[in-house]
Amino acid sequence: MSELVLTTYDWVPELPRGLVRDLRVRWALEEAELPYRVASTPFHDRSPEHFAAQPFGQVPWVTDGDLTIFESGAILLHLAEKSSALMPTDPRDRAEVMSWAIAALNSVDLPCQPWALFRFMGFPGESPEAKFVEEFLKARLDRIEAVLTGREWLVCDRFSVADLLMADVLRQVGRFDGLANHANCRAFVARATARPAFVKAYDDQMAHFAAADPA
Amino acid sequence: MSELVLTTYDWVPELPRGLVRDLRVRWALEEAELPYRVASTPFHDRSPEHFAAQPFGQVPWVTDGDLTIFESGAILLHLAEKSSALMPTDPRDRAEVMSWAIAALNSVDLPCQPWALFRFMGFPGESPEAKFVEEFLKARLDRIEAVLTGREWLVCDRFSVADLLMADVLRQVGRFDGLANHANCRAFVARATARPAFVKAYDDQMAHFAAADPA
Repeated sequence: MSELVLTTYDWVPELPRGLVRDLRVRWALEEAELPYRVASTPFHDRSPEHFAAQPFGQVPWVTDGDLTIFESGAILLHLAEKSSALMPTDPRDRAEVMSWAIAALNSVDLPCQPWALFRFMGFPGESPEAKFVEEFLKARLDRIEAVLTGREWLVCDRFSVADLLMADVLRQVGRFDGLANHANCRAFVARATARPAFVKAYDDQMAHFAAADPA
Repeated sequence: MSELVLTTYDWVPELPRGLVRDLRVRWALEEAELPYRVASTPFHDRSPEHFAAQPFGQVPWVTDGDLTIFESGAILLHLAEKSSALMPTDPRDRAEVMSWAIAALNSVDLPCQPWALFRFMGFPGESPEAKFVEEFLKARLDRIEAVLTGREWLVCDRFSVADLLMADVLRQVGRFDGLANHANCRAFVARATARPAFVKAYDDQMAHFAAADPA
């Protein structure tokens, strides 16, 4: 098998630690028990090589032999094809997992990420734009809350890459107390992040960034 | 081959016409020359059957024989596997197309859709949240502008599902004049939407909704 190399920043400030997107890739790699190596790119002074591998100057990207994949969602779908731990084999289940995985990345992240970024920035939240995003988020959470009634995972009673992505997207909202009125969503995130693969991924990311802190 | 059925609303008001997400699915189907049938679901009074097929009560969804796929991005990736018109066969090119397709759906749509929705709603745009989204959008457009320098399409000099998604995401910004300072992005959208498959998809969507207008 070709070597998998995951590239993330060498260091980030305290606040985004635990949220940098290499975490979801580490999580998937741990779930799938795929061997991998972590490489670093400077957080400061992003180089032309960085932009060549990741056109937005972000992280992560992954090389798999001579393939390069950027955008964490694309990396996860690539890894999912390597492991039934992430993707079921039945075509109907696969179609549903793909639908939910893209829902997490698009329909659900669309309000979640701006909402979390507004909180992260400490904006007062009184503007029409803030209220619009708040309502947009609530509409999505209400629907996921309904779907998760009596269900542990999104598709066919088993954990998949769809749950990994959805839990990671909802987690950023939970970090700023945005799941307070959605008990099923909260329990879902708690269930997903209690998995040993998440715990290891989280600890590994925290250790990676802490190792580069000035002494 | 199993029958492809694309379900969209029976009718929508004037303003969102030309932007409802079944358009990008029609576009992909036309590019791939795949036969399909269009079905309708009520825009008013969304039924339990609607929510069963599309958990957010949105459109579109597609059935492909006994598979059901919701979320337009997931539908496009499903269709892309059926046609080299949408997805190249070389593994390195495929990895790059997947990366850009997911970038369109996540990193790029994340500022584009809130920005366009704020304009659509007619918000004054003076709040810190509005300015944040404006800057977020500019950062993404600046990068795409650089990538598109001297390049017609995003990956290996040929149109793919990555261009279809990126052009459709940028198109919503262009509709509210948000590409004024990004000539390459503007030319890219113009190039993509001049394709006969887009023109047919657009005309078909407009005709579909107009047919349900009260006399």
